Amino acid sequence: MRIDIITVLPELIEGFLNESIIGRAQKKGLADIHLHNLRDYSTDKWRRVDDYPFGGFPGMVMQCEPIDRCISALKEQRTYDEVIFTSPDGEKFSQPVANELSLKENLIFLCGHYKGIDQRIREHLITREISVGDYVLTGGELAAAVMADAIVRVLPGAIGNEESALTDCFQDGLLSAPMYTRPADYKGWKVPEILLSGHEAKIKEWELQQSMERTQKLRPDLLGK
Amino acid sequence: MRIDIITVLPELIEGFLNESIIGRAQKKGLADIHLHNLRDYSTDKWRRVDDYPFGGFPGMVMQCEPIDRCISALKEQRTYDEVIFTSPDGEKFSQPVANELSLKENLIFLCGHYKGIDQRIREHLITREISVGDYVLTGGELAAAVMADAIVRVLPGAIGNEESALTDCFQDGLLSAPMYTRPADYKGWKVPEILLSGHEAKIKEWELQQSMERTQKLRPDLLGK
Repeated sequence: MRIDIITVLPELIEGFLNESIIGRAQKKGLADIHLHNLRDYSTDKWRRVDDYPFGGFPGMVMQCEPIDRCISALKEQRTYDEVIFTSPDGEKFSQPVANELSLKENLIFLCGHYKGIDQRIREHLITREISVGDYVLTGGELAAAVMADAIVRVLPGAIGNEESALTDCFQDGLLSAPMYTRPADYKGWKVPEILLSGHEAKIKEWELQQSMERTQKLRPDLLGK
Repeated sequence: MRIDIITVLPELIEGFLNESIIGRAQKKGLADIHLHNLRDYSTDKWRRVDDYPFGGFPGMVMQCEPIDRCISALKEQRTYDEVIFTSPDGEKFSQPVANELSLKENLIFLCGHYKGIDQRIREHLITREISVGDYVLTGGELAAAVMADAIVRVLPGAIGNEESALTDCFQDGLLSAPMYTRPADYKGWKVPEILLSGHEAKIKEWELQQSMERTQKLRPDLLGK
């Protein structure tokens, strides 16, 4: 799959995209991520991409033209499944949304910055607005990196068995059971006996029970309650 | 305020922390962010910090000792308000949580990686578990960067008026009204007349009404419905 990320600050997430699971997935040929500097699409000699809002409100607003030019240039080269704007008032990002987007061919992420983007872009060019959570970030770059990470890691082959996406939280609608590793006794803090017993069936039973209990206690909403 | 981030992959977020609002806040002396490579606290000659889980489960688990050593070394130097673990099954991160954490003096963020961390760390050393959303990321680094960004940007003086945190989404429990900037007519896409009218009171009224309508339509839960 291919993901194009449009931003005024590519340097914010360049390192992340090259180093992480996304870097590895790109080397394996599973994902192809491109960063586009919105300023390259400005027609202003100062490469400005924002201006004061109409109505005298505080803040700066990202203009229509550079965004329109960048998205149009990309669309001339291929068909995009979605043009996604990262916005705190969008649809909530979740594991099912990540799974769904991982099945797409080509995605564009537009990262907002400053006070926001001109509403006309949202009305005419954006196909989907997604929020990573109920909080405000300085820009959409981290939100795009979060979504790209969650999407790319569920691509078949992206992560090794050591990271084992299928037993992750949320994939089966339950929180994970607690995990323990050596030593079995660290400063008097002990691992549950059952895990040292070697009884495979009992361990599985314990795991499911722990998963259920944790979900019931911490996230009853996942059980539909 | 000071934030210490403990991670096995500091290079993932180093660029982000230096470049963004966080970089600026550090230069202004408002925030002091330190990245700690967990491997520096390993006693293993290969600098390993993970091991196989007890019980025969898939994945690798982060061990108690390096984490305990790192957190203890930090605690010897100052008192921490919270030791936060970024986990998808934790308390949900939100703007009120960001505001609350921005009032603290010293915070530790422990980034999980691999399949998880030894449960005994969570029981004995972590004071708070926080999730940035219902999705699984490859590691806690992006989650820590998200929280640091949301926290630091509400510190007084961190952002200029052009970004204007007080009129952000969520700060008044309402979504923002649509924003528009020049040109007033772009390819036939027009700015609402009212914004060009110059009637300050009417514009304010329009803004509130738009804010209410958007919240009602997109996020009725914010209005307690």
